[in-house]
Amino acid sequence: MKAKIAVLEGFKKPLVIKHFDIPPLPQGSILVKMVASGICGSDLHMVDGEDPRVPLPIILGHEGVGEIVEINGEKKDLNGDTLKKGDLIIWDRGVVCGECYFCKVLKTPYLCENRKIYGINRSFKDYPYLTGAYAEYIILEKKTEILKLSSKTDPTVLVMAGCSGATAVHAIDSLEDNLLDKTVVVQGGGPLGIFALALSKFQGAKNTILITGSSFRKEIAEKIGVDVVLDRTILKEEERINKILDMTYGKGADVVIEATGTNKAIPEGLRILRKGGTYIVVGVASPQEKVPVDFYDVSSKNITIKGVWVSDAEHFKKAVSFLEKNQDLFAPVVTHKISLDEINHGLDLVRERKAGKVVIEKF
Amino acid sequence: MKAKIAVLEGFKKPLVIKHFDIPPLPQGSILVKMVASGICGSDLHMVDGEDPRVPLPIILGHEGVGEIVEINGEKKDLNGDTLKKGDLIIWDRGVVCGECYFCKVLKTPYLCENRKIYGINRSFKDYPYLTGAYAEYIILEKKTEILKLSSKTDPTVLVMAGCSGATAVHAIDSLEDNLLDKTVVVQGGGPLGIFALALSKFQGAKNTILITGSSFRKEIAEKIGVDVVLDRTILKEEERINKILDMTYGKGADVVIEATGTNKAIPEGLRILRKGGTYIVVGVASPQEKVPVDFYDVSSKNITIKGVWVSDAEHFKKAVSFLEKNQDLFAPVVTHKISLDEINHGLDLVRERKAGKVVIEKF
Amino acid sequence: MKAKIAVLEGFKKPLVIKHFDIPPLPQGSILVKMVASGICGSDLHMVDGEDPRVPLPIILGHEGVGEIVEINGEKKDLNGDTLKKGDLIIWDRGVVCGECYFCKVLKTPYLCENRKIYGINRSFKDYPYLTGAYAEYIILEKKTEILKLSSKTDPTVLVMAGCSGATAVHAIDSLEDNLLDKTVVVQGGGPLGIFALALSKFQGAKNTILITGSSFRKEIAEKIGVDVVLDRTILKEEERINKILDMTYGKGADVVIEATGTNKAIPEGLRILRKGGTYIVVGVASPQEKVPVDFYDVSSKNITIKGVWVSDAEHFKKAVSFLEKNQDLFAPVVTHKISLDEINHGLDLVRERKAGKVVIEKF
Amino acid sequence: MKAKIAVLEGFKKPLVIKHFDIPPLPQGSILVKMVASGICGSDLHMVDGEDPRVPLPIILGHEGVGEIVEINGEKKDLNGDTLKKGDLIIWDRGVVCGECYFCKVLKTPYLCENRKIYGINRSFKDYPYLTGAYAEYIILEKKTEILKLSSKTDPTVLVMAGCSGATAVHAIDSLEDNLLDKTVVVQGGGPLGIFALALSKFQGAKNTILITGSSFRKEIAEKIGVDVVLDRTILKEEERINKILDMTYGKGADVVIEATGTNKAIPEGLRILRKGGTYIVVGVASPQEKVPVDFYDVSSKNITIKGVWVSDAEHFKKAVSFLEKNQDLFAPVVTHKISLDEINHGLDLVRERKAGKVVIEKF
Repeated sequence: MKAKIAVLEGFKKPLVIKHFDIPPLPQGSILVKMVASGICGSDLHMVDGEDPRVPLPIILGHEGVGEIVEINGEKKDLNGDTLKKGDLIIWDRGVVCGECYFCKVLKTPYLCENRKIYGINRSFKDYPYLTGAYAEYIILEKKTEILKLSSKTDPTVLVMAGCSGATAVHAIDSLEDNLLDKTVVVQGGGPLGIFALALSKFQGAKNTILITGSSFRKEIAEKIGVDVVLDRTILKEEERINKILDMTYGKGADVVIEATGTNKAIPEGLRILRKGGTYIVVGVASPQEKVPVDFYDVSSKNITIKGVWVSDAEHFKKAVSFLEKNQDLFAPVVTHKISLDEINHGLDLVRERKAGKVVIEKF
Repeated sequence: MKAKIAVLEGFKKPLVIKHFDIPPLPQGSILVKMVASGICGSDLHMVDGEDPRVPLPIILGHEGVGEIVEINGEKKDLNGDTLKKGDLIIWDRGVVCGECYFCKVLKTPYLCENRKIYGINRSFKDYPYLTGAYAEYIILEKKTEILKLSSKTDPTVLVMAGCSGATAVHAIDSLEDNLLDKTVVVQGGGPLGIFALALSKFQGAKNTILITGSSFRKEIAEKIGVDVVLDRTILKEEERINKILDMTYGKGADVVIEATGTNKAIPEGLRILRKGGTYIVVGVASPQEKVPVDFYDVSSKNITIKGVWVSDAEHFKKAVSFLEKNQDLFAPVVTHKISLDEINHGLDLVRERKAGKVVIEKF
Repeated sequence: MKAKIAVLEGFKKPLVIKHFDIPPLPQGSILVKMVASGICGSDLHMVDGEDPRVPLPIILGHEGVGEIVEINGEKKDLNGDTLKKGDLIIWDRGVVCGECYFCKVLKTPYLCENRKIYGINRSFKDYPYLTGAYAEYIILEKKTEILKLSSKTDPTVLVMAGCSGATAVHAIDSLEDNLLDKTVVVQGGGPLGIFALALSKFQGAKNTILITGSSFRKEIAEKIGVDVVLDRTILKEEERINKILDMTYGKGADVVIEATGTNKAIPEGLRILRKGGTYIVVGVASPQEKVPVDFYDVSSKNITIKGVWVSDAEHFKKAVSFLEKNQDLFAPVVTHKISLDEINHGLDLVRERKAGKVVIEKF
Repeated sequence: MKAKIAVLEGFKKPLVIKHFDIPPLPQGSILVKMVASGICGSDLHMVDGEDPRVPLPIILGHEGVGEIVEINGEKKDLNGDTLKKGDLIIWDRGVVCGECYFCKVLKTPYLCENRKIYGINRSFKDYPYLTGAYAEYIILEKKTEILKLSSKTDPTVLVMAGCSGATAVHAIDSLEDNLLDKTVVVQGGGPLGIFALALSKFQGAKNTILITGSSFRKEIAEKIGVDVVLDRTILKEEERINKILDMTYGKGADVVIEATGTNKAIPEGLRILRKGGTYIVVGVASPQEKVPVDFYDVSSKNITIKGVWVSDAEHFKKAVSFLEKNQDLFAPVVTHKISLDEINHGLDLVRERKAGKVVIEKF
């Protein structure tokens, strides 16, 4: 049996569509037929060779929902349900060792020293080859964290849970308090930012505020129920800051979440914060220039800056649960559904920030 | 100027309507004309003489919204806004000293050793007399924690924030983690229970479940968006427990919140919990018989039991903010609007559990 | 090669010394020659048939330090160090699956649904048979959590880390705040209680107080640096409570830790607590009668009761680290060093509460 | 009655000794005769005009212990003890309003918008004038947070609790977990750094490491029981980092605390941290140049940076309690005891980093 796949063979080059023999299934692993596969903003850094984790050649794609075709052994999902052929499933893109200091002692498996990631750091040259979601089939190894989905779920919406959703949950979970009566500002209206805003709403935030330069994303945010969108193409930085001060009795935001992917947003993010506030930097996903920081400001205002990177089984499961419960809310985020053959077009849509979520649904 | 008031002169007796001369305003205090005043389930214990804090005679009523008539001095609200005549305000029923070990060092002012409570532990015999909300006017002392309300808010809905709302926030705040993907069971569908359920939803809970014996309250819960109501008059304890096990892959609830007011609910509450779960006992508001507890069960299942009592400025402010943002959601909870003259009828409605929230709106 | 072992063949009967052929080593597992093996108070419940987890026949003993004789494969310790023949090691008595909801999602592996425990729930009838520490050799399976010890450590002191130490760390870790300026009362002066007291001291507690009825244990506590010992044979309950009130400006203890093994201590424990205090029930290790609890007291005082049971890799590693750093402090706790042949005498010493820690050091 | 005082009349000028009439005591306030007064490193920034909070002229000195001479009214200390003439007391340098959003709602009084600080932001021109500790007498206003000291305490040691001690407690309290098995690196061996190291030890840290360039401070640290001192004058940055990696299995420090007062330490501090570690910036007490930060590093390593500034009643009380319990440990930190007349010499000693703590004990 052959699988249609899209392969990145050289950085800054288009992915190439191929057909590839499905190899024998390793002990304990699962063959999955893809049903939906999401394009993530970070894929662009990978295509461009800016992500140091990516080997060549590679099948990219780290967000997916699929149907089980075959299980070589027995496997349960994170709820303890035994998986079987035909089940609709979603999986965590990261596979952790479960044995290192970070997994076992610190209980922070997202820091696992041996973390492997489907579609990111696994070469197409290494058996079992089919380890990315931009493909008709994927092979999930024994240690993969899986959740069975209800047949009622919309796979094109659910894919978001796998990466941006789980990472947004990690960001929100890293806050020490709940968000009742709090003002949350998110910088950047891509899927990660939108998910963070929706979560903030469902943590009871009083004000959810998006700063974006895209009128396209502004619309999506409004459908999600974001309280205020500050358009960077209309309002200058001082005006944006003043709007936020007005909404907070002159104090500033309790929480700011950087979800733009660029460190250029950081100085404004720090200015927006109230005394004692928390700045979560979750979008900076590739090496960039250093940003000058005023540490007297950080110190005298008792500011906390938290870097948040990737996610683990807990975040993943919460993201899936939240998306399943709020599918209608998130439906407008998926703005483009394409076929695997159109993958390069899909990547362009994301690059131009003219899309919410682009999802492959034909393989 | 005279104020119409309702006075409790003897336990288990009806309140008596009187007209009373408004005394000179103490330095720093505020004269408020009541706009809405809520009846709380705990008022029944007070009328019946079961609450050891209550002196006689007393003007009961500890939840209120009103309009400022006069300020003897200057006063800011919790947001730092300067208050003025004509402002619509809500206040925290508890006035704390701000100086004792619990206020200053532990930062748990709800445990303040000198806490005075409008309508609960302040005698009608003591100047300035008008210290309960079952009255046309109330006098708020200098240290009262106040929030200015928008003129758009519905005072009859907002009154809930003052007691059941703030206490429910205290319960939810006392949890160490957020509720994403969690199952929360609330025992008892009065205003406290309903508020806890709504908060759980806005902490991202996957399943919100109410156990009640009142079809009246079942309806309110469904309007609030509670996922499942288990009717005690239809399902036996074993059936209720099995329903919850079915929804949780056999594990049990992550969080159970006792909001019934009676310790009879406690054994079932403990049985419903999963290993490592948390049981919040917030409804037991009067001395009752001891309940036998299996501590091997508590220990071997790593169960946490938390008593939660009253609330403080933080909880109060969060409750007001949450109610203001979700007024429509809570509107169905207010099932009866009465006049001060009908106060004894209002108390009866609550006693018979045939009401959601009963609010006085005519004075 | 033969291993000398002590086997429990019938409840309430003496252990029987035997010699048993060491079986072939399973893939990934490690053969360890015991160097020190601790007797735990809970072993008595097991011998008496009061612990529902114990099958017959069984090699008891769940605390041990030993030397690696052979490794069938490769294995790293929790610090990432590769283990090799001759290494002095200590291991976690519990082996968890790393895959269930409690391990993966909740990150509470001490609640693992598939937890196996050396010397507690593993029958001598099941391969590889040598799964208890009351033996000359033990076989550790692949998933066992191991720490390499420095050759400078005293194995007879270190054994404590494996059970009472790790469990005491779990108790202390479960507190939300550090103990600076706090008053901690521990009920029961066995190894678990002593370890909890030492940890409290090294969490900065202002007052560490032991309640015990054993003059023997009183002496050990004083050597450990406990601030106050309240002797149950001299002071009545009211007197003990008054002493604690005197030390806390009339407020009561911030934290009480039940480490007696009997639920009879619970009513006093609850009385000792201040408003807002936390009661940790960690010693109740076998089914016992229910204890009547006043929930109005729990509620109106905002009391937290936490059951704490067993431990996980994090607690275990912290306990080992703490013991290694404070070996001299803990040396007086080991009051008896015996040979495996004297195991039944050792159990008697513990039963009569005339010992601190009894450790087997000859096999 | 006259008080001898030391006044700063112009920035970068020596303090001037004067004699000043003690004014009538305001209602509720307390006249205190100084017994010990500490010189803080931050006083140098104030003398030099680098601290924007300081008005001229001013009596500096924000750490003190004294004896009550007169109380105009009634006053209790933080434990609830009624204060009286002759009591030996220590007080919190900051006086907070207890009413603003930060005091009441966020329960972070160290962020109080109306915080007044003895010896820092209170002009000598304003009644009651005697508001700094470099004086024979100080007048404490009604809202001051006070603790009565036992007559057995050494006032020259206790003064540290008032500023560096309380701030160090704030730093340690801001950590989410306890320090069992953790490696803590402190940059800077002044009183703040030394206190942070001692606290880390009494939070159970496995490794406490000081980086300093002063052999004088190295000695003090060793007396305090610090595990390792890395001397900047001997070891280069790469060597220091390698030492720390060697002690942590190649992972880096769990917690780094900047206590140098200069932002030059920050780049090394960030490099020392392990993945998921926390960097506390507590020493940067005056405006300085910005420091370039690599946010990809912050993000991809899940690093937390926390600014910590001043302290509140909780931190203050914990610091006093900790110092009282460990007076002998801290005695070597006080290296110089001087008279008020020698204040300018004392400031020079601190400026040249040739002192531990310099304390005025003669007035």
